[in-house]
Amino acid sequence: MGGVSDDVLTARAFLSRVAEPACIPLWVAVCRDGPVMVADSIRAGTAAPAVLEACAPRAAHTDPYADLEAADRRGIRLVVPEANEWPHFALSCLEAAGARRATAYQNGQTRHCDAGEPIPPLALWVRGTADLAALGVRSVGIVGSRAATSYGEQVAADLAGGLAARGVVVVSGGAYGIDAAAHRGALQSAGETVIVSAGGVDRAYPPSNARLFERAAKSGLILSESPPGAVPQRRRFLTRNRLIAALATGTVVVEAAARSGAKNTARHCSDLGRPVMAVPGPVTSIMSAGCHELLSAEAHRAYLVTSVSDVLAVIGGSSDLGAYTADGSDTGADDLRSSLDTLESAARQVFDGLPARRAASVDELAVASGLATVEVIRALPGLEIAGLAESVEGGYRISPFARRRVGRAGAPSSPSTVSVIR
Amino acid sequence: MGGVSDDVLTARAFLSRVAEPACIPLWVAVCRDGPVMVADSIRAGTAAPAVLEACAPRAAHTDPYADLEAADRRGIRLVVPEANEWPHFALSCLEAAGARRATAYQNGQTRHCDAGEPIPPLALWVRGTADLAALGVRSVGIVGSRAATSYGEQVAADLAGGLAARGVVVVSGGAYGIDAAAHRGALQSAGETVIVSAGGVDRAYPPSNARLFERAAKSGLILSESPPGAVPQRRRFLTRNRLIAALATGTVVVEAAARSGAKNTARHCSDLGRPVMAVPGPVTSIMSAGCHELLSAEAHRAYLVTSVSDVLAVIGGSSDLGAYTADGSDTGADDLRSSLDTLESAARQVFDGLPARRAASVDELAVASGLATVEVIRALPGLEIAGLAESVEGGYRISPFARRRVGRAGAPSSPSTVSVIR
Repeated sequence: MGGVSDDVLTARAFLSRVAEPACIPLWVAVCRDGPVMVADSIRAGTAAPAVLEACAPRAAHTDPYADLEAADRRGIRLVVPEANEWPHFALSCLEAAGARRATAYQNGQTRHCDAGEPIPPLALWVRGTADLAALGVRSVGIVGSRAATSYGEQVAADLAGGLAARGVVVVSGGAYGIDAAAHRGALQSAGETVIVSAGGVDRAYPPSNARLFERAAKSGLILSESPPGAVPQRRRFLTRNRLIAALATGTVVVEAAARSGAKNTARHCSDLGRPVMAVPGPVTSIMSAGCHELLSAEAHRAYLVTSVSDVLAVIGGSSDLGAYTADGSDTGADDLRSSLDTLESAARQVFDGLPARRAASVDELAVASGLATVEVIRALPGLEIAGLAESVEGGYRISPFARRRVGRAGAPSSPSTVSVIR
Repeated sequence: MGGVSDDVLTARAFLSRVAEPACIPLWVAVCRDGPVMVADSIRAGTAAPAVLEACAPRAAHTDPYADLEAADRRGIRLVVPEANEWPHFALSCLEAAGARRATAYQNGQTRHCDAGEPIPPLALWVRGTADLAALGVRSVGIVGSRAATSYGEQVAADLAGGLAARGVVVVSGGAYGIDAAAHRGALQSAGETVIVSAGGVDRAYPPSNARLFERAAKSGLILSESPPGAVPQRRRFLTRNRLIAALATGTVVVEAAARSGAKNTARHCSDLGRPVMAVPGPVTSIMSAGCHELLSAEAHRAYLVTSVSDVLAVIGGSSDLGAYTADGSDTGADDLRSSLDTLESAARQVFDGLPARRAASVDELAVASGLATVEVIRALPGLEIAGLAESVEGGYRISPFARRRVGRAGAPSSPSTVSVIR
């Protein structure tokens, strides 16, 4: 678990079950006191009243050891913010939004635990082999109606397949219709696909999508902030939608009726500063009405996308990017020196802090470059697009293309691991 | 012909045939010296060299008397800027754009007679009973591909029918596909429809649309700036497109391939400050690709419209407007006094200049209100939307709604007719 202590892991397993996500008072308490102290205070009944109110009903029935053991038996792991695999990059938008909600909560301007509050998850239960930390850099949410038309399913599968073939991770729910079509399209291109589940990751919902869940777990991920066994409930769908919005660099709504969960996900994207894209369709189809509404919205208008290249243009990855990272070739690339010369000073500092072989986390890069974490997070996508950095398991390193040109041997410094709980 | 002298009419008939529209040097000469003097100078061979270059080849073969006589026999009239029926309101955008082109031409920055130059027509040949002057106030261009799909034809017919039923004049070309579907839809709603023809108005093109042309002439208009008998040529289609753009308050592109005449019309709209709307369609249809391009354009992005009410919202007419003008009822209207209080000073002056019964032209209103013509043109749509003015044959008058409330008896002044050639 990447050097995470058993205490922390057990505490977060406990917290993930004891309260219904996303619970602002609990998250505020964990930010302030850390997961172990908060879990202890809940068990002892000494936590803040709002925390106890949210957690007391389940406290006595929550056995994190049993949960972790059962999860381990089923190939499920618990990923926590203290682990290298935690998707800091993707979730930084929820950290920022959560800080604002926490302030509003502390000022009494918000209720405790509305569904879908934009705060980070306390932990993620994960099945599958793919790297969670890579999410948010080149990942695209593909969402839409369960009652999709064959047009919508075709477009979802084609977009997902084309994006997956270009190394983009597809993120969606596990429902019928657009969700399932997107995962199938990505899997057909032998790409990585991520199911963000509203229930436990051991529980295919709808059950008839069980085979799809198995395939996603093999070449991608299934993740949930609810513990194994959790039943998908309406509230959990709304809470789950914010995770899709956060984990995807941008989200495409393929088909949505005028009232639709996909529009809820789109609103989360807008709130989190993530681009929303929408696929147009026949004006005679009610399943495209929600998309057309997103495309005509005065504020936070969605980007109209009709193709894989439209989507890549919006999320900021050029179609040529694969050429750099896949085999290190430099077709069409400018000379490295001139690439570096055009970098902004912060990006240059981050580049100089990138290790050559092993992966450095965002926090390590902040130490290495002497920049704030947020500046590192801002600089990384540009470095990736320029073919200078690559995202690998556990973080980032210099790209093979840049490595060959510079002839650098190793990381410029060996930053110590820093706490990620701020 | 509304007090137009035979000299002027004959001169403009001559000018409409002697040069291919839209010819900048000829238009500049007519603006400066008037149509009679310019026609004489062309016949005498004493016109400016650029004018002679454009007109000399046809001068000896042009017989305006024969044209006017033949037209009269076929129920075709020549409408000229000096006539009350001239659509000053709609064409004011071409007057403004033409003035800029004229300056560029005189400074040597433009060629003489490019197809589709944004200058006003010198005259319009017209078949049909509807009022040309009402165009541009509540008229919608519906354009699109000749090779339309059944989806596109259905949407065009439905939009046109719904708009026509709400008193909106439909404007389009006379081609197969979207054009024909739009006219059919308008005619089915017993609405007014206007065919802007690339050839003579006596000439249905394509010939198989002859019956449609006849029906349009009965309950709408066919118009062309080329004289009767003129053959539709590629250049004339491009020149014609600017007239559709100008004569429609806004234009909807229903289906268009990536390369399409409809996109040419849309560009004219943008250049003339007229809103462009586009109907989305399946991304799998090449006939919607041009629409999606218009909807994603960075600059001059088209409005996405899916329904009649979307179109009405864009052209600035509320769906309730019909209620004011049709029967004078005031359902949902604020008290007239408070409507008047919210008017800008210029709009108030124009309102005070509106006659109660007979129609006043824009120029008459300029004299009556003491405002520049352009200020009158700017104020009128707002007055119409507020239910205070109505457009009738030959111009504008106070609406029945406002008339009943104010109890006014007649026009505040009786402005003399002024020259419209500035």
